[in-house]
Amino acid sequence: MAHIDLGVDEKQFPGITGPMRYRPETAKPLNELAEVLLRSPNSLPAGERELIAAYVSGRNECTFCCASHSAFAAAQLDEGMDLVDQVRADLDSAQISAKLRALLRIAGAVQISGRNVTSELVESARAEGATDVEIHDTVLIAAAFCMFNRYVDGLGTFAPTGQDAYAETTRRVIEVGYGAAARPPAA
Amino acid sequence: MAHIDLGVDEKQFPGITGPMRYRPETAKPLNELAEVLLRSPNSLPAGERELIAAYVSGRNECTFCCASHSAFAAAQLDEGMDLVDQVRADLDSAQISAKLRALLRIAGAVQISGRNVTSELVESARAEGATDVEIHDTVLIAAAFCMFNRYVDGLGTFAPTGQDAYAETTRRVIEVGYGAAARPPAA
Repeated sequence: MAHIDLGVDEKQFPGITGPMRYRPETAKPLNELAEVLLRSPNSLPAGERELIAAYVSGRNECTFCCASHSAFAAAQLDEGMDLVDQVRADLDSAQISAKLRALLRIAGAVQISGRNVTSELVESARAEGATDVEIHDTVLIAAAFCMFNRYVDGLGTFAPTGQDAYAETTRRVIEVGYGAAARPPAA
Repeated sequence: MAHIDLGVDEKQFPGITGPMRYRPETAKPLNELAEVLLRSPNSLPAGERELIAAYVSGRNECTFCCASHSAFAAAQLDEGMDLVDQVRADLDSAQISAKLRALLRIAGAVQISGRNVTSELVESARAEGATDVEIHDTVLIAAAFCMFNRYVDGLGTFAPTGQDAYAETTRRVIEVGYGAAARPPAA
């Protein structure tokens, strides 16, 4: 049970969806930030941006965010959940582009501390073809999930187990986006 | 110099203001989030909310965010910078209310990991009179500064030294708020 009374059935509104119902004033900019970072038109495919979110959430051991963004990434990557699992298990050997690997290394540094991002990490990403906007967005996606993960776990919210539990949210996030995904399913 | 070309004079746009000029699409929800959390009407005074932001930023060793939010807190607390310095130096002995101390302990836990927030920390805050919304907002302010700090430092932005450098921004944040504060001073 969450640390505060969110006023919702936590089984129906697991993870971040409970606090978002509880405090719509903060949910609005949080959903807008997720929408811009993860779904707006971008030279980084949405599946790769969701993979960065899942990778950081896994490193922060946030069950809800890791499971949900792994599902969102898998649904938008040709290689599906197998690639997500590879990246989370061993970034060095995962079958991804050199550019994405370099960006994920930047994200991994941000997860520890912004001060861990070195010029060398940034130059490596640039040498593999990453643009300044892609580097910016990678840093901000990783930083944002250090917020989302702490928000979800800091309030002690409920995280369903098993990927099946995330299938309906995955469908809604991909079809209609983050703002709508926070709303309850139609009756 | 920042890790990417932000397209601004970094002396004129230090810390987060450079990346916010560089990427207005993400600046908008980031400023809205700061505005709701730190300045909207709330039973927690704005000075105390800024103190939570400064405390977390200090623990994350983010020079720019710690200096700026310390200045914003000091300007809105009767006891000024002396109280900010007390809290940052030793939370246990700082001359603050028991409720604010309990909320800052929650913020300190969030800074490490959301999973470090225990029922005991939350019950202690509640026993000192903290409401559910105040506990929610404390968790989210602390989580948000784990993002802002990583964003500012992950891009290697410039941080002016000395509190004088933050005086003009302090005046603008308090007078007109976060969105406006990211814009350049009038010529």
